[in-house]
Amino acid sequence: MDTGIFTANNAWMMICTALVFFMHLGFSLLEIGLTRQKNTINILFKNIFIVCTGILLYYMAGFNLMYPGDFNGFFGFSGFGLSLPENGLTPDYASGGYTYWTDFLFQAMFAATAATIVSGAVAERVKLGGFMVFTIIYVGLVYPIVGSWQWGGGFLATLGNEVNAAGELVKEGGFHDFAGSTLVHSVGGWAALIAIYLLGPRIGKFEDGKAKAIPGHNIPIATAGVLILWLGWFGFNGGSVLSADPATTSLVLVTTSLAAAAGGMAAVTFSTLRYKNFDLTMMLNGILAGLVGITAGADLMSPLEAITIGAISGVIVVLGVSLMDKLKLDDPVGAVPVHLICGIFGTLAVGVLGAKAGLDQFLYQLAGVGSIAFACVLPTYLIIGAIKKTLGFRVSAQEEMEGLDIHEHKMDAYSDFRTNEN
Amino acid sequence: MDTGIFTANNAWMMICTALVFFMHLGFSLLEIGLTRQKNTINILFKNIFIVCTGILLYYMAGFNLMYPGDFNGFFGFSGFGLSLPENGLTPDYASGGYTYWTDFLFQAMFAATAATIVSGAVAERVKLGGFMVFTIIYVGLVYPIVGSWQWGGGFLATLGNEVNAAGELVKEGGFHDFAGSTLVHSVGGWAALIAIYLLGPRIGKFEDGKAKAIPGHNIPIATAGVLILWLGWFGFNGGSVLSADPATTSLVLVTTSLAAAAGGMAAVTFSTLRYKNFDLTMMLNGILAGLVGITAGADLMSPLEAITIGAISGVIVVLGVSLMDKLKLDDPVGAVPVHLICGIFGTLAVGVLGAKAGLDQFLYQLAGVGSIAFACVLPTYLIIGAIKKTLGFRVSAQEEMEGLDIHEHKMDAYSDFRTNEN
Amino acid sequence: MDTGIFTANNAWMMICTALVFFMHLGFSLLEIGLTRQKNTINILFKNIFIVCTGILLYYMAGFNLMYPGDFNGFFGFSGFGLSLPENGLTPDYASGGYTYWTDFLFQAMFAATAATIVSGAVAERVKLGGFMVFTIIYVGLVYPIVGSWQWGGGFLATLGNEVNAAGELVKEGGFHDFAGSTLVHSVGGWAALIAIYLLGPRIGKFEDGKAKAIPGHNIPIATAGVLILWLGWFGFNGGSVLSADPATTSLVLVTTSLAAAAGGMAAVTFSTLRYKNFDLTMMLNGILAGLVGITAGADLMSPLEAITIGAISGVIVVLGVSLMDKLKLDDPVGAVPVHLICGIFGTLAVGVLGAKAGLDQFLYQLAGVGSIAFACVLPTYLIIGAIKKTLGFRVSAQEEMEGLDIHEHKMDAYSDFRTNEN
Repeated sequence: MDTGIFTANNAWMMICTALVFFMHLGFSLLEIGLTRQKNTINILFKNIFIVCTGILLYYMAGFNLMYPGDFNGFFGFSGFGLSLPENGLTPDYASGGYTYWTDFLFQAMFAATAATIVSGAVAERVKLGGFMVFTIIYVGLVYPIVGSWQWGGGFLATLGNEVNAAGELVKEGGFHDFAGSTLVHSVGGWAALIAIYLLGPRIGKFEDGKAKAIPGHNIPIATAGVLILWLGWFGFNGGSVLSADPATTSLVLVTTSLAAAAGGMAAVTFSTLRYKNFDLTMMLNGILAGLVGITAGADLMSPLEAITIGAISGVIVVLGVSLMDKLKLDDPVGAVPVHLICGIFGTLAVGVLGAKAGLDQFLYQLAGVGSIAFACVLPTYLIIGAIKKTLGFRVSAQEEMEGLDIHEHKMDAYSDFRTNEN
Repeated sequence: MDTGIFTANNAWMMICTALVFFMHLGFSLLEIGLTRQKNTINILFKNIFIVCTGILLYYMAGFNLMYPGDFNGFFGFSGFGLSLPENGLTPDYASGGYTYWTDFLFQAMFAATAATIVSGAVAERVKLGGFMVFTIIYVGLVYPIVGSWQWGGGFLATLGNEVNAAGELVKEGGFHDFAGSTLVHSVGGWAALIAIYLLGPRIGKFEDGKAKAIPGHNIPIATAGVLILWLGWFGFNGGSVLSADPATTSLVLVTTSLAAAAGGMAAVTFSTLRYKNFDLTMMLNGILAGLVGITAGADLMSPLEAITIGAISGVIVVLGVSLMDKLKLDDPVGAVPVHLICGIFGTLAVGVLGAKAGLDQFLYQLAGVGSIAFACVLPTYLIIGAIKKTLGFRVSAQEEMEGLDIHEHKMDAYSDFRTNEN
Repeated sequence: MDTGIFTANNAWMMICTALVFFMHLGFSLLEIGLTRQKNTINILFKNIFIVCTGILLYYMAGFNLMYPGDFNGFFGFSGFGLSLPENGLTPDYASGGYTYWTDFLFQAMFAATAATIVSGAVAERVKLGGFMVFTIIYVGLVYPIVGSWQWGGGFLATLGNEVNAAGELVKEGGFHDFAGSTLVHSVGGWAALIAIYLLGPRIGKFEDGKAKAIPGHNIPIATAGVLILWLGWFGFNGGSVLSADPATTSLVLVTTSLAAAAGGMAAVTFSTLRYKNFDLTMMLNGILAGLVGITAGADLMSPLEAITIGAISGVIVVLGVSLMDKLKLDDPVGAVPVHLICGIFGTLAVGVLGAKAGLDQFLYQLAGVGSIAFACVLPTYLIIGAIKKTLGFRVSAQEEMEGLDIHEHKMDAYSDFRTNEN
């Protein structure tokens, strides 16, 4: 490949890596903003812990679990750590869209995201030690193995391929999940759902059979989190092109932004009609819903299709939030409606809209959603079950009432401010 | 064009697009930080609404109003929505500085900015419904039509061109507004001024004929907003080169940064001499003033000229803030001094300093300023006038006293904190 | 050089410049978050002042002091201001990794960092006027002169070079400080240490011979600051390659991120074992420690070596914080442990680990550390000494108790919130 193009590609991928890294700030601010101040330090601690361990675990094993090279399509591992190039640390290679180092780091930034999604869902009542153990196993093993099924070239990537007697590919099938509506967002979302179920609601969330709103303590910071996440999605989706190919990357940014905008507008319009109130957090969730929804097919959709997907995602998230309340599932930041439900919707939408739409593709999409569901739900159930019986997964009622910050961290997030008892 | 250069150009433009998007976080934080906590949700809602509608409106009509192709120089429209390339979504074109998709998205991010400027000016007393209607019309119609006059190749772009009998260009004229001191900042600034005038001051702002400071509730967040805006200006001005051309883009970043720094220092020095107080918000406004001031001619100035323009802008903004007070115009965030007055100054400065300085150019600049003034003031007056008579444009005195958050959004921005009655 | 590569290189360098600029927001948020709300405006003022003056001073003299061209290796100056290209502002040059303008701006963004480090160390008791004078001298003179010794090609860069009778280089030596563990972080760190010593601790910090924690008032904002700094380090280290060379830049980003993650994990593990508490601020300091530690040799280390350096830095910072307490040195944000101690450690580590490890290299590193120590300690001592005798360097006890915001700025950072007396 031409060195100029390679240099531009690699630079673009590094920038996208930086933007995906920055999403961790977005998640952190969103989660603390939508919860109570007494648990702020705890949530920040979890999020920073996830970034650090996520990158290190991906170095230790994740990268080689997710991209094992030739493998049986279900499980492969090409060894601990990263391979060093033979001729020193800075090899002179110039093919593909980026260097080996860029490849690793971009994927490492993705890895931590799955656990971050869970973090918000279990906020304000999860025991720190238990959550840390869960994170290490989920990010270190479940995420990369499941990811290998598609992005590592595993069985989902080749699903439906038909080969003739001569071994030539006569029909190309394949699950399509461009940047991870399923492989990242649903992987996080399933774990969030199971964790919420096993953990139970926060004290006071459901009283007399009715869901009670527990207001977030810092909405400006939550809003900043959403705009930072949107910015980060420029890298999340834009980098998933795996090069700076002008036509595809720019299409992807357009579909991503239009879906986000449509998600925000649809959510706020629908929720205003339904609840007669201009609800900022619904607009924010709608933006995230649109972003998650478009992620599976951001490379396949026309602008109008992207707006359609975004708008439907925006409506879904409003319904999803109220469904969670009906099911007595307490999801403080709306992680399940945003990441799981819209992740599934966006994945299936690839079979209905855009360049690959068709019945066959829809079935591949279903198969992908189903396999990942199975592969996430069961391990999460087992891991958290084991944690519950050993370390414990939920804090005591007293600790929950008084706040995790004081109990787990002996620290106050806003020591100079007078706060209410919430 | 060489594919390597095209790829680099397009990548740079996409990054600039992301940075301009990020400015919306900057504006949001600046506006809430400089106002009272009781209106925080409302301001955030407006800003997020503007981002979402801005992008969607620009998709629906704005882009084709602003860049209609060959047109009469005053009004053109090349149809709703975006054109799809003939050969699928990812055409193989490689000319110019960026793809069609990048072009759209970069310009879409600009579009919303004009309304954001107004948002700050009318904060704490504007009625949400009325503001939303205004935004839709102003961003959807006024901004792109006015923009077409210059950036779409309209009459301002060709002003003063002289053609001989053979139809050859013998003298090149043209209004010069590199990245929008006038086309973006003054367009927002004029609407801000008219809206402030029609809306009247906040209750308590002018008592016994004297202006009373209404302190902002979160200065750290306002400061973060300004630094984010400065960062975003790397994309706003850097992307306005419309390629990654090394010499021009890097010159533009240097002039932009020097003007910002000089604006901050000049404003703080001048205001310290005048008011015997180290005023942080004046330094912040000075930075923004320098940025707005350099925006018209960032590609034409030497470093020293950029410093000169920035420094004068910094002084102007201090005088402008006190002028607004004298005129009993209540501009909570200083939108008019920063965006309108410094926008005009920066535009005119192109006729006095830099590579195009000269009497002819100064007259073109005056013509541009005047045309845009007329084209913004009149529609704003009519739109807001119509809104006043129908939906209403100002909230009730009770709502204003108690805060827009509770009334329009049934929500509190900082529910865990004890706040003062302000 | 190929224009495509040059364009990509220059674009990368401009993006890195923007990221380094953004670090100033990170520093600002970290410093205010870890201190008391009554001094917030003052700290923000100092930080914004530093950005503005830093860029202007670097334009006026710093750039030509730091990169004077051929010089005696100790002090050179190639004139005030920037040189304009002969053929207008946008010369058509295409060699090296970036244009003259990019070169200037990237280095200018670095320059202000040194003073920012000091700002945190002296927070909550330094007199604004005195600090501003110190900043101007330190950023304007000390930083660039000291920098010229290495990055300007001075005596440290050529240390240990051996030349034969024919004038050919037969052995290449040279101090190695890739992106400034010493030249930026220690330069700031030494000044911080001396300033802390000369200024004395905050009232109430050491009572009855014991260090008392003075809790920071906004930990979410401090955490945001650290993540922004980490993001900025992508540009700080990534840009220090001085091109977008794919192999080196991507290696540098990998070593940087792994060291940061390892620093965070090591610090939190070590401090949890030591103090039986999950300390968020220690994890944050550990991340910064890892970043500072890897900065000297980010281009020389394998991933495993980067993790080693990061982890050791993380432990060092925990020990460093407690050492400062023992020495009765009051460093509100941990500037000395992070920037000075880890800066020294990272610089020396280049002699022990990585591609240049060896006794000779270790001695060059020691020489670099020692020269810079001498060159920073003495001037800082003299400058602050002179300020103490003239302007004064510390505020009155009353002002310190009541807060610098009210006294120096007549302004409150959070006027709508009820605050405690701290």
